[in-house]
Amino acid sequence: MTAFEQERRNKVQRLPARGQYEREEVYRIVDDALICHVGFVIDGQPFVIPTLHARDGDTLLLHGSSASRLMKHAGAGGALCITVTQVDGIVLARSIFNHSINYRSAVLFGRGQLVTAPEEKLAALACFTERLLPGRWDDAREPNRKELKATAVVAVPIDSASAKVRVGPPKDDEEDLALPVWAGVLPLGQSYGEPLADPGAAAELPLPEYLAAYLAARRE
Amino acid sequence: MTAFEQERRNKVQRLPARGQYEREEVYRIVDDALICHVGFVIDGQPFVIPTLHARDGDTLLLHGSSASRLMKHAGAGGALCITVTQVDGIVLARSIFNHSINYRSAVLFGRGQLVTAPEEKLAALACFTERLLPGRWDDAREPNRKELKATAVVAVPIDSASAKVRVGPPKDDEEDLALPVWAGVLPLGQSYGEPLADPGAAAELPLPEYLAAYLAARRE
Repeated sequence: MTAFEQERRNKVQRLPARGQYEREEVYRIVDDALICHVGFVIDGQPFVIPTLHARDGDTLLLHGSSASRLMKHAGAGGALCITVTQVDGIVLARSIFNHSINYRSAVLFGRGQLVTAPEEKLAALACFTERLLPGRWDDAREPNRKELKATAVVAVPIDSASAKVRVGPPKDDEEDLALPVWAGVLPLGQSYGEPLADPGAAAELPLPEYLAAYLAARRE
Repeated sequence: MTAFEQERRNKVQRLPARGQYEREEVYRIVDDALICHVGFVIDGQPFVIPTLHARDGDTLLLHGSSASRLMKHAGAGGALCITVTQVDGIVLARSIFNHSINYRSAVLFGRGQLVTAPEEKLAALACFTERLLPGRWDDAREPNRKELKATAVVAVPIDSASAKVRVGPPKDDEEDLALPVWAGVLPLGQSYGEPLADPGAAAELPLPEYLAAYLAARRE
């Protein structure tokens, strides 16, 4: 895969050593995150709305109600900025100034287009569902015609992107290293609780195997 | 505290029953989250940048390098949209259509102004540090004049805001309730790992009491 070209829009200006432009690295960050924040502009006013996303090659997929402001504007072809961020830790330095967080973020630029072909919409919804929980698409009831119509899918070809990553211990100034202040990283991550069956279920069903496997893999 | 007025900009249009305008509720979501996503516009192009935030009453505080694009634009008085999102669970319905996530998000609107008075900047940095880890400000070395100059602080009076929240089990259509599909919620949350001392530390220092207390409270 080729890297994204560095241009004014996507160039990491501050701490450029943390910037990354390789598609593989950018896409890994995008795929690791459950949600993104979509930025769009209406009459000069920025809006930033959280939503689920999925990636199909060099295209980012969004979906939502056909009636939603986000879907209307994302599908209308205006400029979008889609940002994905994972926080991995709190970086505690000896000096206040060098406190930081460990994170991985990706910033994507592009313009959206509505996906209208029903088979393409279905394929996109399968992507979203499988990202929520691999194995779920084949188990749950597929969307009917009415539901498919009520769901908008927007495809955003990724024109430009970059990632910014901080990892590792604090970086204090040489003269601060001897201060009697504990320094290090408090790692943060995603925790997965016990699945809660719908209390309105007509009958008690066993936990699906794919859900148990998903949880086991993430709790290792 | 009074509620935010509902206007075009902040009104939750889609699933309005999930919308909330009470300051207390909006601010609880803001305060619970470690980072926000700041949206701003340059020449019609939206940018969405993740950053740490802190709140001082009806003002949101941002900080960063004086040289950063975000700080320059956030401090220049242009329209901002600042969004905070917490994901609390994956909602697995019997129908694909009713899959969702449980979340709490807050969307804030305002314009930023640079904070220049050194004592105000120091107070803001104390807010940020104490949000990362309560007790840290009194332990770590305070910023010196040079560091304070290199740090920009932007105050954003919150002109308008709303929150959107989804909680609880999946909501399937009546006719789907008897389907033999497990339905429920997979709760997601923040996990806290074991603190990693800086391997470059000159001497081994005990874990600060405030850090141990912070962890204990979050692991209960």
